[in-house]
Amino acid sequence: MSDGARRYRLDVAYDGTEFAGWQVQPGVRTVQGTLEGVLGRMQGGAPVRVRGAGRTDAGAHARGQVADFLLDCRLGEGELEHALRGMLPREIRPLAVRRVPDGFNARADALRKSYRYRIDRSLSGDPFIARYALHHPYAIDGEALDRALASLRGRKDWSGFTGSACTVENRVRELVEARYDEGPGGEGWFIFEADGFLTHMVRNIVGTLLEIAGGRSGAERIEKILESGDRRLAGPTAAAKGLFLWHVEYP
Amino acid sequence: MSDGARRYRLDVAYDGTEFAGWQVQPGVRTVQGTLEGVLGRMQGGAPVRVRGAGRTDAGAHARGQVADFLLDCRLGEGELEHALRGMLPREIRPLAVRRVPDGFNARADALRKSYRYRIDRSLSGDPFIARYALHHPYAIDGEALDRALASLRGRKDWSGFTGSACTVENRVRELVEARYDEGPGGEGWFIFEADGFLTHMVRNIVGTLLEIAGGRSGAERIEKILESGDRRLAGPTAAAKGLFLWHVEYP
Repeated sequence: MSDGARRYRLDVAYDGTEFAGWQVQPGVRTVQGTLEGVLGRMQGGAPVRVRGAGRTDAGAHARGQVADFLLDCRLGEGELEHALRGMLPREIRPLAVRRVPDGFNARADALRKSYRYRIDRSLSGDPFIARYALHHPYAIDGEALDRALASLRGRKDWSGFTGSACTVENRVRELVEARYDEGPGGEGWFIFEADGFLTHMVRNIVGTLLEIAGGRSGAERIEKILESGDRRLAGPTAAAKGLFLWHVEYP
Repeated sequence: MSDGARRYRLDVAYDGTEFAGWQVQPGVRTVQGTLEGVLGRMQGGAPVRVRGAGRTDAGAHARGQVADFLLDCRLGEGELEHALRGMLPREIRPLAVRRVPDGFNARADALRKSYRYRIDRSLSGDPFIARYALHHPYAIDGEALDRALASLRGRKDWSGFTGSACTVENRVRELVEARYDEGPGGEGWFIFEADGFLTHMVRNIVGTLLEIAGGRSGAERIEKILESGDRRLAGPTAAAKGLFLWHVEYP
């Protein structure tokens, strides 16, 4: 890396359908890997490491992922954005490129993140959102769902909603928002905002909420899962295709 | 065909991205062909002919295509709808199945059809509508566009906007609606309604409107194309992926 390297922040949206998630893994197509490949070519082949605010799962999407990287190139911010727009595949779209102080860390500096999970409540399934929503044409008990959502909000230990692959020790996070909005077209959105999320946390919460909303268990189940920290009490992990990393907030 | 055959009306939506259009053609995957294959299997292999209200182009979509067919099966309307939902690929979604009088003809009986054409005006291109919109991040002169749209409305001969593959002799149709709506998210919709449409008519109109909206020609160009009937004066055929057969109206 020459002395000319500068740190950039990239805001980026992607359709994750055909990616094995955000994080680089050997032999598969990932969003981070695709970005690193393109940026490396812009730097004459020298490797570039891209840090993302959130590591989205295989098949999950992003509306507002934030990443940072150190790049040695002579392009201005606007030119770099144009170059990325042209070089990246259609599924990964740069939203903004900015120079940032060298100490900026998209992951460590994030104050809050929001994730949204979309369900398609239409009977037949809307073919135009089939890649971007879970088809869930079943009845929803709004009252039970609201009670369950209320009991999710706050500062809690999320062990009971965390995937077994998670290696993080401290599983306390503050969920500042947890709600469900439904549009007139039969589209529903779960909206979550927290100071951090754990592996599969949103998908496990949604899988559980859909069981409660369908009357398969009561809203008090949430408290039991939170208190016991027992993943086996929670519902199935909802399909990745409904999940969007929506926004990342910085100081 | 046994005496038990009854006529059905099918309302259907489809993502046309991976189809070579509506109409059956040998050796390629079409929407009509897929429907005929599934219905034929429900009838024990005897061929079924499906008539569609509109023959959408390769890559174009439908929100509200209407089709009819004669089928010899013992299922009720609701059961038939369920069976189709299960047997059709995810990209073709039945919206409703109804018994209709034997004389019903989805194509001949249509009073009016509406088509919509979507453009994505965001700078980078929204990855979640990339399959369902033309990316057009250029400035739009709303006044020129409105004048052009106004001069499209009415009963006209559409030869100047008709693709060369069109074999229809009478090219007079009444365009009762032609407008452009823009949402807050940078999405634009062209909305057209007429008693009938000709091959490539909407796509050729949109290609011309986008040139006028971009200042490449004046709104008076529309009149010249209509009066001369000269296809060479019109703009390029806009990409099929932005086009939706939206609704078909019957008496």
